[in-house]
Amino acid sequence: MSIQQDVAEAAGRARAASRVLALATRAEKDAALTAIADALTTHESVILAANAEDVERAEADGTKSGVIDRLRLDGARIQAMADGLRQLVALPDPVGEVVRGDTLANGLELRQLRVPFGVVGMIYEARPNVTVDAAGICLKSGNAVLLRGSSSARSSNTALVNVIRDAVLVFGLPADVVQLAPGDSHEGVKALMRARGLVDVLIPRGGAGLIRSVVEESTVPVIETGVGNCHVYVDASADLEKALAIVLNSKTDRTSVCNAAESLLVHADVADEFVPTVVAALQDAGVTIHGDAAFTAYDGVVPATDEDWATEYLDLEISAAVVPDLDAAIEHVSRWSSGHTEAIVTSDLGSARRFAAEVDAAAVLVNASTRFTDGGEFGFGAEIGISTQKLHARGPMGLTEMTTTKYVVTGDGHVR
Amino acid sequence: MSIQQDVAEAAGRARAASRVLALATRAEKDAALTAIADALTTHESVILAANAEDVERAEADGTKSGVIDRLRLDGARIQAMADGLRQLVALPDPVGEVVRGDTLANGLELRQLRVPFGVVGMIYEARPNVTVDAAGICLKSGNAVLLRGSSSARSSNTALVNVIRDAVLVFGLPADVVQLAPGDSHEGVKALMRARGLVDVLIPRGGAGLIRSVVEESTVPVIETGVGNCHVYVDASADLEKALAIVLNSKTDRTSVCNAAESLLVHADVADEFVPTVVAALQDAGVTIHGDAAFTAYDGVVPATDEDWATEYLDLEISAAVVPDLDAAIEHVSRWSSGHTEAIVTSDLGSARRFAAEVDAAAVLVNASTRFTDGGEFGFGAEIGISTQKLHARGPMGLTEMTTTKYVVTGDGHVR
Repeated sequence: MSIQQDVAEAAGRARAASRVLALATRAEKDAALTAIADALTTHESVILAANAEDVERAEADGTKSGVIDRLRLDGARIQAMADGLRQLVALPDPVGEVVRGDTLANGLELRQLRVPFGVVGMIYEARPNVTVDAAGICLKSGNAVLLRGSSSARSSNTALVNVIRDAVLVFGLPADVVQLAPGDSHEGVKALMRARGLVDVLIPRGGAGLIRSVVEESTVPVIETGVGNCHVYVDASADLEKALAIVLNSKTDRTSVCNAAESLLVHADVADEFVPTVVAALQDAGVTIHGDAAFTAYDGVVPATDEDWATEYLDLEISAAVVPDLDAAIEHVSRWSSGHTEAIVTSDLGSARRFAAEVDAAAVLVNASTRFTDGGEFGFGAEIGISTQKLHARGPMGLTEMTTTKYVVTGDGHVR
Repeated sequence: MSIQQDVAEAAGRARAASRVLALATRAEKDAALTAIADALTTHESVILAANAEDVERAEADGTKSGVIDRLRLDGARIQAMADGLRQLVALPDPVGEVVRGDTLANGLELRQLRVPFGVVGMIYEARPNVTVDAAGICLKSGNAVLLRGSSSARSSNTALVNVIRDAVLVFGLPADVVQLAPGDSHEGVKALMRARGLVDVLIPRGGAGLIRSVVEESTVPVIETGVGNCHVYVDASADLEKALAIVLNSKTDRTSVCNAAESLLVHADVADEFVPTVVAALQDAGVTIHGDAAFTAYDGVVPATDEDWATEYLDLEISAAVVPDLDAAIEHVSRWSSGHTEAIVTSDLGSARRFAAEVDAAAVLVNASTRFTDGGEFGFGAEIGISTQKLHARGPMGLTEMTTTKYVVTGDGHVR
C-alpha cells in the first residue's frame, strides 16, 4: 500500500472517531483527559525506556547536545505533561458555544454554534511533550488528531501515543481520536500535506524551515505559527528605566522563543541618554549588538546589515538602530516585522495610539515586554501555537481557536 | 518587467493604500461609497460602451447566450450596483470592534480588536457586478483589493474600476485601494496566487474548476467558496405538505446557485406516500430525477449512479433516494455533502437535534429551504461569497468575515 493510501486510511479512521468525539460531553472529555494524565504516570517506565532509545540513537548520530536535551524525558517532564492535561480539564469546553444568534424577520431562528474542525494534522519537531500537549488540546476541543513528530523522537512518540490511546479507549471514546501519522520518511509528511478533504487543518510547529515548507507544499489549509522578528521601540517620551527593563526582559528572559525581541529602535531625542545605558546592560547580559552608526559608536557593537534587520536570532543577539521619529519607527517595523509581536515604550498617549493602530502585527504591546504574547499569559490556559497569519486565528491559539462554526437555522416550513 | 514583478508592484501600491484606508473612519469610507455609487450613474454611458465591446467580442467568439446574458450590463444593472453600494453605507463598520477584552491578573490590559486583512485578491468569472460588489465590501471593511475578473469582461471591468478609482480619489483616499490585478493571461492569475506575503488572502468566486485550481496552486491563504451539493432529507415524522414545498423551493427557486438542492432523501416510512407526490411535482416543474430503485419505479425517473450523488447539477436535475432511517440519511449526507447546506424536514425534536449535531456543514436547516443560506437572508446585508471551508469563515461571509484581529496589550513597564 502506498504511503498516500496509508495516510488516507488513517485520516478516514480519524474522521470516524472525530464524529463520535464531536458529540462527547465536556464531562466525558474531561474524564478521558484525567485518565490519560494518570496513565502517563502509571506507565512512566515504559515511556522512559522508549525515550532512552531515541536519546541513544541521537547520541550515536552525533546530534547536538541542545537538541538531545529537548528530546530527553525524565520523571519531572512526564509529570509536567500530566499536569498540562489536568489544567485542560479545568478549562471551559468551547464546543457548543452560541457565537451569534438572531430571530430573522421571517421568523427563522438563526444560531451560529462553535463546533470542532474534525481532523487536525500536527507536524512538529523534536520535543515529545508536544505529542501530549497537542493530543490533549485536540481532544478537549473535540478534534481527532494525526501527529507527525520528528523521526528522532519516534520511539518516545509511539510509547506516548500508545498510552494515550489505551486510556482514551477505557473511557469509551474511540482510540483513533489520537494517532501517529503513518510513515517515517519525508514522503509521509508530504502525503499528510496533500490529504485535502481528509484533514481539515494542518498546524506546523517548529523552525522557520519546517513552517515554510508546510505552507508552500500543503493543499490542506494551514495555520502558520511562530516566526517572530519582534521589535521594541523606545519613544522620545519613554520612561527610560522602564524601557531598559522591557528591552532586557524582551531579549534575555528566554532567547529561543518566538516572542523574544530581536530588534531595538530608539528615538533620536533620547539616544544620547539611552543608547549607552542599553548597550552596557545588553552587553553585560552577554548580548551581541548589531547596530547602525549610532550604536557602532560604542565598543563591541558590530555593524548591522539588511540581513540583521530581517533576522530572528533566537539567541543572545539583537539588531539596533536610532530612528528620527515615530514615523520612521513605524516604517522600519512595517518593513521588517514578521507580524508576531511589536512593542512600544512611551508615555505619550498619541504615540501609543498611533503605534497600536498603524503597526500590523498579531500583538502590539504598549509599555510591556514582548514576552507577554503567550496563551498562558493571555489567560487562555492552553496554547497550541502562536499564529502569525491573518486567516482564522491571529496570535496565541487556545481551545477556542481549535474550533470552527456551523449555522443551525430552524423554521416551520419556510421557503423563499 | 515580468508579470510577477507587475503583480508585486501592484500589491505594494495596494499595501501602502491599505495602510491609509485602515485608519479611515466609517464616515470617510461611507462618503467614498456614496461617491462611487453616484459616479456609476453619472458615467453610465462610458460603462455601457465598454461593456458593449465585451459583449461584441464574446458574440464574435461564439460564447453561449447564457454567459453573454450574465456579462451584459444595462441601466438597471448599473443602478443595482449603485444600490448595492448604498446598502453598504447603512451597515456597521466591523473595524475597531473589541472582540474580547480583559484586565489580566498582573494588571495588563488585553484587548482583541477587529482590523482589516490589508490586501485582498479576488479571482472571479464573467459577471462585472462582482467588480463593484467586491470593491465596495473591501472598501467598507478597510481592505485594499486586487481584482482579477475574467478576460471576457476586461473592458467593462476596466471602465468600472476607473470610475471607482476616480471617485475614491476625490474623497481623499488613495485610488490604489481598488486596482485591477495586472496581466490578462493565466500567468497573471498564477502570479497573484504566488504573491504570498504581498497579498493577505485570496477569494475565488466562480465555477468548481476555478476554485479548485486556486485552492491547489495558491501559496497565498485562500477562502474557498461556493460548491454546494446540498441535500434535503424528509424524515419519517415530516409534515409532508411542508416537505413538498421545501423540496420544490430548494430545487427550483433558482437552479444556478450554490444553495440550490441537488439531492433528495426520503425516509422509508413515508416513501409510499411522499415519493409519488414529489416525483410528480418535480417533473411538473421540469426537473429530471436521477433516482434509486424506489424512485425509478416511477415513469421518467432515470437510474442514479455514484456520480449523481456527487454532482452539483446547477440545473433542473436532482438525485433522489429512499433511506431506511435517520442514521442512513446522516451517513449518505456525510459521504456526499460538499459541506455547504444540508436540510432536514421533520416534526421530531430528537431527529432535528441529531441531524443538526451530526451533519458537518456550514449550515444545517431544519424545516426550511436550502435557499436561505445567504448573507442577505441571514441579515448580514452584504456577502462576498459563501465559505465551504472550516478555517476563518464558514457559511455566508459579510463585512465581519473580511477582517482579522489584533491584540493590543497595555501595561506600565510590565516584564515577565
